[in-house]
Amino acid sequence: MPSEPKLPFDPIERASAIWDRHIGESRSMRLATSIMRVQQLISSELDAALKPFGITFARYEVLQLISFSSAGRLPLSKIGERLMVHPTSVTNAMDRLESQGLVRRVADETDRRRTFAELTDEGERVLAQSTAAVMDIDFAVVGLDASQQDEAYELLRHVRQASGDFSD
Amino acid sequence: MPSEPKLPFDPIERASAIWDRHIGESRSMRLATSIMRVQQLISSELDAALKPFGITFARYEVLQLISFSSAGRLPLSKIGERLMVHPTSVTNAMDRLESQGLVRRVADETDRRRTFAELTDEGERVLAQSTAAVMDIDFAVVGLDASQQDEAYELLRHVRQASGDFSD
Repeated sequence: MPSEPKLPFDPIERASAIWDRHIGESRSMRLATSIMRVQQLISSELDAALKPFGITFARYEVLQLISFSSAGRLPLSKIGERLMVHPTSVTNAMDRLESQGLVRRVADETDRRRTFAELTDEGERVLAQSTAAVMDIDFAVVGLDASQQDEAYELLRHVRQASGDFSD
Repeated sequence: MPSEPKLPFDPIERASAIWDRHIGESRSMRLATSIMRVQQLISSELDAALKPFGITFARYEVLQLISFSSAGRLPLSKIGERLMVHPTSVTNAMDRLESQGLVRRVADETDRRRTFAELTDEGERVLAQSTAAVMDIDFAVVGLDASQQDEAYELLRHVRQASGDFSD
């Protein structure tokens, strides 16, 4: 839900105008700054929507990813790889989720170095309710119609690809 | 500088395809997830570019904002407002910058509740070098030409406006 406007002007537009005058081309500066700001906005809206379920969006992503695996379980190493986060973050998220009774760690019988994560029944329930909650606010991507959402997605995909996230 | 591709496929495209099959329309999910990922990429590239100068991008923004003020000084409260961050974050950034000798706090003679921030000479030097460093990597917004950068900026501006960041 949008909060009350905080400023009577757009602070990024203003910084951009000053930058153009005193430093030079502000195009990439204002885009980078916007991405950071929009991430903050989305992230805080999503965390707020998930608060009733006791999880953050980062933990929601872990639950969702596990549920997406065809075997119903996923090696911990794969979780970090797919979510593109550090193994330590996965460990922390798993510790929290496990203490909340939403996931369990299961040893791999055939490879002792490997541990799987799977959802508990309560984890499945919380995931379903959480998914409804974030879809209900359209993932906090407000102010854009469907085709604008697609355009923004495609543009950001160029950045992800050029940054080396994937090679397809 | 792009790192080696980490995955042979785009993990967000893959999640999006599974989502479409099992949950429903994935449009806003994949956009929100992309924004989070691109923010991580940009943020870590910018922090890396600024590391030689001993500052993060968050602290760089504080230095830049102070330098933009016509009086050469800015009340601490204004810094939080313009950067849209919590007063505590401003205090932390100012503490770090002050201990690094890059800014100083100056009491307002006419209003004892108010404190100004201003750059030291060393702060001016570090700011100039830092600006050159982040411009040199085009603010880490790789993979987009000038008009695509403008398009992405405008689309994200709709999100910022709809979220209530500003009212113009």
